[in-house]
Amino acid sequence: MAEVHSVRRARLRERCAAAGAAAALVTRPANVQYLTGCAPPGAALLVGPGPADTLVHLRPPPDGTAQPPDELRSIVLPSPDGDAAVAAADLARQQHADGLAVEEHHLTVTRHRALRSVAAGVHLTDLAGSVEQLRLVKDEHEIASLRIAAEISDQALGELLESILVGRTERHLALELERRLVDHGADGAAFPTCVGTGPHSGAARHIPTDRRVEEGDFLSVRLGASYRGYRCEVGRTFVIGSAPAAWQIELYDAVFAAQRAGREALAPGVACRDVDRATRDVLTAAGHTEGLAPWTGHGVGLEIDEDPQLSPAAMGKLDACVPVTVEPGVHLPGRGGVRIDDTLVVRPVADGGPELLTITTKELLAL
Amino acid sequence: MAEVHSVRRARLRERCAAAGAAAALVTRPANVQYLTGCAPPGAALLVGPGPADTLVHLRPPPDGTAQPPDELRSIVLPSPDGDAAVAAADLARQQHADGLAVEEHHLTVTRHRALRSVAAGVHLTDLAGSVEQLRLVKDEHEIASLRIAAEISDQALGELLESILVGRTERHLALELERRLVDHGADGAAFPTCVGTGPHSGAARHIPTDRRVEEGDFLSVRLGASYRGYRCEVGRTFVIGSAPAAWQIELYDAVFAAQRAGREALAPGVACRDVDRATRDVLTAAGHTEGLAPWTGHGVGLEIDEDPQLSPAAMGKLDACVPVTVEPGVHLPGRGGVRIDDTLVVRPVADGGPELLTITTKELLAL
Repeated sequence: MAEVHSVRRARLRERCAAAGAAAALVTRPANVQYLTGCAPPGAALLVGPGPADTLVHLRPPPDGTAQPPDELRSIVLPSPDGDAAVAAADLARQQHADGLAVEEHHLTVTRHRALRSVAAGVHLTDLAGSVEQLRLVKDEHEIASLRIAAEISDQALGELLESILVGRTERHLALELERRLVDHGADGAAFPTCVGTGPHSGAARHIPTDRRVEEGDFLSVRLGASYRGYRCEVGRTFVIGSAPAAWQIELYDAVFAAQRAGREALAPGVACRDVDRATRDVLTAAGHTEGLAPWTGHGVGLEIDEDPQLSPAAMGKLDACVPVTVEPGVHLPGRGGVRIDDTLVVRPVADGGPELLTITTKELLAL
Repeated sequence: MAEVHSVRRARLRERCAAAGAAAALVTRPANVQYLTGCAPPGAALLVGPGPADTLVHLRPPPDGTAQPPDELRSIVLPSPDGDAAVAAADLARQQHADGLAVEEHHLTVTRHRALRSVAAGVHLTDLAGSVEQLRLVKDEHEIASLRIAAEISDQALGELLESILVGRTERHLALELERRLVDHGADGAAFPTCVGTGPHSGAARHIPTDRRVEEGDFLSVRLGASYRGYRCEVGRTFVIGSAPAAWQIELYDAVFAAQRAGREALAPGVACRDVDRATRDVLTAAGHTEGLAPWTGHGVGLEIDEDPQLSPAAMGKLDACVPVTVEPGVHLPGRGGVRIDDTLVVRPVADGGPELLTITTKELLAL
């Protein structure tokens, strides 16, 4: 595995060289993790100048968590109040780097000023989203972790469906799901679990409340495991009680058809906005123009919301081995709604098309 | 309550005026929350120019969560991909603010550049930690919330002590504690609950593992509730089994004495570093010079780790109505250790001295 990270750093080094920077300073935690396999809080990674890379951190990672790979020079700052990025910039200066590319989208103005001051004489440039770009297409190790994360999420959700739901609060159901994720081997929840009942169901962003599940409710659940740092999500909507009402069946069918259209549109070379359009058109054709979220999916990986974005204004095309969510939803104020959310990996048709990672049934279950 | 927030904004306006800035742009979430009572993700608060303040956000806060106060102008951006800070800076320009103080310790270089570009002609200055300074001394509303957060934390911890512990893993105990916090009315955990058993006990920063509680172990627990946004912490160390070993009693007594010394040192006007020294000196006198954390306490409030810091290099003095933790610990590699952690409010002697918020017993319990 250590080799994986050094290959990734070599690719970053090439990009920097092409842009005229002798070295790069990486501070965004998910980027540090991608390039080293570990992300101790506050760590900064200096890639170059030259062939040696250095991880500067405030204290060694706790035992039992991922450690920096052996080939990486590792420096622990004497004072935990120090700034690892400042120390790394100072190191770049001592090593006579003439240019240093830094993550201006992550560094605050105050920290950037401190870097400039310690690395006087080193020309600071913007690394921008170079590491995020490298992270877009996943290797099979990464996809294997996502696959396990999805399996854990499906298990936790499946167990919930077998339990009594009526009378329990959204907050309790959310906590129970998070406990089950850990029971099944997750590092933790990939994001705060969302449970919405009745009028709260189907909302794109809902914070679980003390509302209890009632007969006749829609119940929307969205959860995901983090496994070895990789995060996935699965979302389903159920009906509570004996039989769904006519409006519930109709709404569910529309969202289900939209989600299927989005899944089927996933292929290498397809524009991200076209996937969004495929999903969204089904909803608008069914008369749902209000209450749609401004996106219908997004990339996942070391962060739960990564590029690519599946939205009307998204630029760029999908590649093979890019994991994304497809998650349309409709929320009718005062009544509730439906969201259906899967994590899939884009694959060419020759390889069987998109790989569905979250396999919990998408039938409308009456629980 | 709305009045509380407008008084806070008036104080900030005075500070800005004194520094020559006609308006302030607040983006750090805890600062926005302090000044408005709500903190929708991505929101930005424009204080001034003139008497009117504006909260710009990406979408309205979900129903059931805190809403912006009525007297505050509230603007929802048309696109959720927008940057509320950029929109607020543009508003400052339209209102002919000649100077705008921004939070350079929170804004990234990239966002700051976007602000500069949209607010061309407006002189941008650094608001620095002005709002954090205002947040240091808490009013009685804030302390009342902390008091409830502490009560919830004590309840969750108390219930854990009544359950069977041997054989359960650190991760499960941590999850159970977090569930109990919510059961008792917390918004959620104030920080990730820390449970360390045996060789993991007493470590300042430990991430719960699958290690199970065994007879003879030290068990360290550190948890805290968040209530109405206010966060407290309580930490205790127990012994598992019939009777503690001699080394365990000795170590516990040393940490207990250090923690008491720190608590007793808390008073208005006392230098923060002197509180740290009072705590630390007891440990070093007992021969514990290795494995001490670089701080022995810190402020709490809307964030779990705020100013003041209680550490050897800390500047400044304590004030009345400042809530802090006192949390010394000793960790012996391979054997484990002890941490004892309380949240207290600094009060003058005339008012009875420091107010202990977390009242769980600090006797060495054998569970």
